[in-house]
Amino acid sequence: MAIISLLTDFGLRDGYVGVMKGVIWKINPEAQIADITHFIAPQDVRQGALALLRTTRYFPPGTVHVAVVDPGVGTARAAMAAQAGGHFFVGPDNGLFWPILAAAEKRGEKPRCFALDRPEYWLPEISCVFHGRDIFAPAAAHLSLGVPLEKMGSPLANPIQLSFPEPVKTAKGWRGEVIEVDNFGNLTCNFPSELATDPKKVKLQIQNFIIEHLHNTYGEVESGKLIALINDNNQIEIAVSGGNASLTLDAGIGTPVALISLE
Amino acid sequence: MAIISLLTDFGLRDGYVGVMKGVIWKINPEAQIADITHFIAPQDVRQGALALLRTTRYFPPGTVHVAVVDPGVGTARAAMAAQAGGHFFVGPDNGLFWPILAAAEKRGEKPRCFALDRPEYWLPEISCVFHGRDIFAPAAAHLSLGVPLEKMGSPLANPIQLSFPEPVKTAKGWRGEVIEVDNFGNLTCNFPSELATDPKKVKLQIQNFIIEHLHNTYGEVESGKLIALINDNNQIEIAVSGGNASLTLDAGIGTPVALISLE
Amino acid sequence: MAIISLLTDFGLRDGYVGVMKGVIWKINPEAQIADITHFIAPQDVRQGALALLRTTRYFPPGTVHVAVVDPGVGTARAAMAAQAGGHFFVGPDNGLFWPILAAAEKRGEKPRCFALDRPEYWLPEISCVFHGRDIFAPAAAHLSLGVPLEKMGSPLANPIQLSFPEPVKTAKGWRGEVIEVDNFGNLTCNFPSELATDPKKVKLQIQNFIIEHLHNTYGEVESGKLIALINDNNQIEIAVSGGNASLTLDAGIGTPVALISLE
Repeated sequence: MAIISLLTDFGLRDGYVGVMKGVIWKINPEAQIADITHFIAPQDVRQGALALLRTTRYFPPGTVHVAVVDPGVGTARAAMAAQAGGHFFVGPDNGLFWPILAAAEKRGEKPRCFALDRPEYWLPEISCVFHGRDIFAPAAAHLSLGVPLEKMGSPLANPIQLSFPEPVKTAKGWRGEVIEVDNFGNLTCNFPSELATDPKKVKLQIQNFIIEHLHNTYGEVESGKLIALINDNNQIEIAVSGGNASLTLDAGIGTPVALISLE
Repeated sequence: MAIISLLTDFGLRDGYVGVMKGVIWKINPEAQIADITHFIAPQDVRQGALALLRTTRYFPPGTVHVAVVDPGVGTARAAMAAQAGGHFFVGPDNGLFWPILAAAEKRGEKPRCFALDRPEYWLPEISCVFHGRDIFAPAAAHLSLGVPLEKMGSPLANPIQLSFPEPVKTAKGWRGEVIEVDNFGNLTCNFPSELATDPKKVKLQIQNFIIEHLHNTYGEVESGKLIALINDNNQIEIAVSGGNASLTLDAGIGTPVALISLE
Repeated sequence: MAIISLLTDFGLRDGYVGVMKGVIWKINPEAQIADITHFIAPQDVRQGALALLRTTRYFPPGTVHVAVVDPGVGTARAAMAAQAGGHFFVGPDNGLFWPILAAAEKRGEKPRCFALDRPEYWLPEISCVFHGRDIFAPAAAHLSLGVPLEKMGSPLANPIQLSFPEPVKTAKGWRGEVIEVDNFGNLTCNFPSELATDPKKVKLQIQNFIIEHLHNTYGEVESGKLIALINDNNQIEIAVSGGNASLTLDAGIGTPVALISLE
């Protein structure tokens, strides 16, 4: 059973996502299609790339992930497809897949990337504004039917890379920032869990608040209290138990956070 | 064909729901998955329980309903699965399934409940913050493949119960309140239709407005007028024909409503 | 493989859409179901009709499209099903399908329309407020199983028509208006691309802004600049490159736009 996932910044109001499903089913009516999210902030390639990295690995091997966060649609940017970690990825060559490709290389894999330049795998008519429908959805549908990646286009030697804010070493620990805010107002920091080898020997500072050490789960402190913990993506997260840390702290993407090591 | 439904307070922005679908399809790639809603108010177990009661019975017998409104994730609260009315239910043991279990008992059934305590039916790694992905989605996928409920865990004798505001008898009728507001601003009251045996012989009061009797459908009064009727869940609903009663009346969950019987 | 699409004004909060999927799968558990959108403005039949016209043609032939934007639910308005352009359409007879039927007639087809008046294809109990669940979803499921259209009801000779604002000829060109605003704030005008035979020889005026000629794609102007182009539905669209034209221009549905021809 072929599985295809969709991640875009289209929202759900205009029917763009439904149209992509129609296009896919015209080519492969058996495909199972799941929405990952369509609420990436408009044209925020970095947020889309982080969401892909965090979510796609939970899908079965062989899943075709279509991602469209595409400020350059209609310009000279290439369309691409890649294979990494046993999954396929289809979308614009603008860095969206870079974290996934980099992680695969770090694991010792050699991801394969191709420019989607064979119109026989697209819709017959190509608009300048909606490659999700005209190129990416049909290419993904053909991949899900078993068309080999290398038939879809020419090898792409150097896909566009993407940079992220890295935590900076300080005298007492690390200086970082909030890089994601979820639906519950929880704040993900750019601190991988390795920066806190002993969860009891670490303090966090955000705005004027100090959080004394890392807990395991929201329920360990009483409702309304600030808490820090390791989230499901192995990064340090700041939350308010039973509440919304983003609103309580007036914090969002880019808010500075300090990690103070007590070891 | 196995059918699984999902109801959560996760929203659709962060990809949590897509991840649960990936996890399910890794175990049962043939499962059909429908979202019921992911917009339960964060951590509002009572709202989630009412939504489950109202919606799940329209699905085919054998459907596995996964529900995650889970303020106690990561604490000692049990994970549970139940069978009632020919359907399966998977989620936290916090009262979310209580109305469904109580309704089944009222019909003379004996619902079967189990604590999900067999890790062989979970993901290999369990986080403290996302049991929807790590425990409930894989358990539901195994159930949808036909694994017997009793193999998934130990019998659960006393699942957590949930209480709801009940209407109170008054000299002239009943005192109740708004318990749900839908997308159109329609207000559901905690008055079952039995409290209005003759729809012509009843008045409702909400805020300073009087509604003279029950109608059958929105279109029976002119646009902009207040109207009361029996909704699709057999409860009395207050609406504005062609408008939004919640905004017009400045009313929401908890707003008092009086039912005055004229018989 | 049977494919069914859903387009409504229900939103995604209340579970109404999930319930319709449950009802469909009770009758045809093999149906693939895609949401087109559930964010049509409440009871805006015209917006629903435009969205259907723009999106449904990308689905495979034989798809059953269920559309519910239904201010007259529970009144005497008929329920209908139609076949046009190789697709099926199910919903209220209130003009929602008129643009699709009119386009089919313009192509020389004879669309077939039927009133859904055979209760054996409905749910056993019919509410006055939710025909999406009680009539349209089951009728669509039966159609997707191959029940012939003419068995579902009596011929419907004159389905309700719908009118749209047409551009008006002026001394220098055309006077029109914004008829749709998408998720990115792009503004669709009621100017078909034929009104601009030479994209270089046309000017647009909206609010106090002049846009000098049509471009091919957003990326052709620098970020933040106003741009006009032909959108994926062959209509003239006004956008802000990398921005939101609706917010920048304080423009929405109904905002006047002038097309000035320089030929």
